[in-house]
Amino acid sequence: MIKYAILGFGTVGGGLAEVMADQKEKLAAAAGQSMELGYILVRRDYPDSPWRDKLVRDFAVIESDPDVAVVAEVIGGVGAAYEYSRRAILAGKSVVSSNKELVAVHGAELAALAKEHGVSYLFEGSVGGGIPLLRPLCRCLAANRIDEVYGILNGTTNYILTAMDTQGQTFADALKKAQELGYAEADPTADVEGIDACRKTAILADLSFGGNLDVTAIPTRGITSVTPADLELAHALGYTVKLLGRAARAEDGCFAFVEPHLIPQDHILASVNGVMNACAIRGSAVGEVVLCGPGAGAHPTASAVAADIADAVRHMGSPMIPDLGAPNGKLLPAEALCSRWYVRAQCAPEDAAGAFPGAAPVYGVSGECGFITGPMDRRALEARLAAVDGRAAYRVLA
Amino acid sequence: MIKYAILGFGTVGGGLAEVMADQKEKLAAAAGQSMELGYILVRRDYPDSPWRDKLVRDFAVIESDPDVAVVAEVIGGVGAAYEYSRRAILAGKSVVSSNKELVAVHGAELAALAKEHGVSYLFEGSVGGGIPLLRPLCRCLAANRIDEVYGILNGTTNYILTAMDTQGQTFADALKKAQELGYAEADPTADVEGIDACRKTAILADLSFGGNLDVTAIPTRGITSVTPADLELAHALGYTVKLLGRAARAEDGCFAFVEPHLIPQDHILASVNGVMNACAIRGSAVGEVVLCGPGAGAHPTASAVAADIADAVRHMGSPMIPDLGAPNGKLLPAEALCSRWYVRAQCAPEDAAGAFPGAAPVYGVSGECGFITGPMDRRALEARLAAVDGRAAYRVLA
Repeated sequence: MIKYAILGFGTVGGGLAEVMADQKEKLAAAAGQSMELGYILVRRDYPDSPWRDKLVRDFAVIESDPDVAVVAEVIGGVGAAYEYSRRAILAGKSVVSSNKELVAVHGAELAALAKEHGVSYLFEGSVGGGIPLLRPLCRCLAANRIDEVYGILNGTTNYILTAMDTQGQTFADALKKAQELGYAEADPTADVEGIDACRKTAILADLSFGGNLDVTAIPTRGITSVTPADLELAHALGYTVKLLGRAARAEDGCFAFVEPHLIPQDHILASVNGVMNACAIRGSAVGEVVLCGPGAGAHPTASAVAADIADAVRHMGSPMIPDLGAPNGKLLPAEALCSRWYVRAQCAPEDAAGAFPGAAPVYGVSGECGFITGPMDRRALEARLAAVDGRAAYRVLA
Repeated sequence: MIKYAILGFGTVGGGLAEVMADQKEKLAAAAGQSMELGYILVRRDYPDSPWRDKLVRDFAVIESDPDVAVVAEVIGGVGAAYEYSRRAILAGKSVVSSNKELVAVHGAELAALAKEHGVSYLFEGSVGGGIPLLRPLCRCLAANRIDEVYGILNGTTNYILTAMDTQGQTFADALKKAQELGYAEADPTADVEGIDACRKTAILADLSFGGNLDVTAIPTRGITSVTPADLELAHALGYTVKLLGRAARAEDGCFAFVEPHLIPQDHILASVNGVMNACAIRGSAVGEVVLCGPGAGAHPTASAVAADIADAVRHMGSPMIPDLGAPNGKLLPAEALCSRWYVRAQCAPEDAAGAFPGAAPVYGVSGECGFITGPMDRRALEARLAAVDGRAAYRVLA
């Protein structure tokens, strides 16, 4: 009998306690032995909670209990979460986490510490919520050189873009609705500015290319500038707009960036709507696989964290530590990556075709037009935008 | 240093040797030690093969080499493949396989034998080719009661349906083209009659519900009866036609069947075209996830088998054996499962609405009409088909 502890009793922490109880037998089979909830670390009382006997306020109680083999960190942020994760590993306990900020910033350091102390450090829930994603990337696709990962990695922005697309809402209206439904925070900055997607992109890039990238160096552009006109014109051109995190292998480093993209309407990612997430992985042997599902939420995220707890217990003595790589991997400038572009502009058809040979603009209700360019890098694009009175430009996927 | 052997040197066997060599270092990291190709079991000479030094014709050489820890069975069928798998396990070697027929028919027996002898028995490549599917189902979603699995599990039929849909081809023409491209066998029966999809459905059902179903008892209907008119009418109704394998949990057993289905055009599976496969998994905590990718082919399948080899080596002494359940799980009659139906018929609008209240038929170029019914079981459906001169009826997904 092994004990585990949950750090944090918010949405994910509560969901995790429920899921671990609900599927206790199945998880025991996966872990190879039964597992008992030892403690939940909280900051206040919950007198009515079914787990009130397990609540503790002092991490030292967990740290010093030799029966606790695994600690699930679902606090979030890089303060207490970082400190407790370190202390748990130093105390010889495996740590599992759904905290993308912590993994993106301190993951490689914690992984190295875990290796030194012979314990697992797993974080399936940090990217893609409940979607099986990191284990497939690292284990199932171990026979592949990973060449690219890209996906819809943030449910809030995907909800907003879907609402703008299908209901013609403005960004502000769609955001307000998302906040009412609990899909967006009161301060939505981390989601709508792409910061959350950036952290997940960093984790995917590190696992794929081993660069342990500095998250603050990853070019990140959110969806606040996307207008109803962009969605209208994208549709008319045969595309839809999605915020993508992308990371690609290159000869002398890797690309990693977060930007709105136009996706062809018949591409699988174009069907991923609302709060759903999806991630495509391109590998040398497999070609391309796409994994889709709920990218957030109490139970989906708990599903991922619970599987990590079972895996950590299963591998006591032979720890599982996904390789985030060595620091200072080379991040190439995203501007240099060629692609086709969507341009929203105010110009006559001949001006568009003059500046961008072959461009065939379609016109929207506002009188603005949209068209798709040939492949070029961002510098070449920007040099020509003035000639068409360009108001927006987004990359086209494929 | 551990040795592995490959049984069979066809498409998958050749691809597996290549992939194992190409990603040797990465696979060694996943396995926890380096792995060396010991033997390839063949039935004839390949004097020009880069692996000619490794070729053997006598399985006893592999069986009796104590350095061979893992045997990859990619022969196919249930003859030699079954015998060698048994003998390898009895000799204390882990077995990995991409052979869906063998796993569907003898998988539970081989898994039990593997358990008895303390070795792994893995078969990720047997369903969905290169798509990470069984490990996500069994490991990543271990915290879920699995309620349903369904998907596009055969690339040949999906290629044919896509060609019929997008190019207006007849079944016969699309099949001929698939044969020319190597996507269909000279004898296409196992694919077009749904037998291949049935085997994969059985494996998914066994892993999800533990029933170890008798594959011959699973109702299986292929795509030979699907006509261009069905695709035309489905389109007009907002759907597309896909062959689905489905398995669902019920209170007193499970459903499992293979049938053509109408899929809403905005459903992710509707975007899965050509030889791509996709599988949706509905779990109690995660909700629904969908995993898509290449369902066949030398390198995609080898990607899955190679990962199994690495996992088997990683878990020597603590074997990995997915649980296919105990025999004689109760298979409920598919006719009893209610769903909405698509009906192709020859009747006036008022006759359709008379027999199927609410039906709003659309008419195709042939003069036949198509409409969607309310939810009912197959018996209720068939009782009403005569009134509309019904020519075809397929389930509607969701």
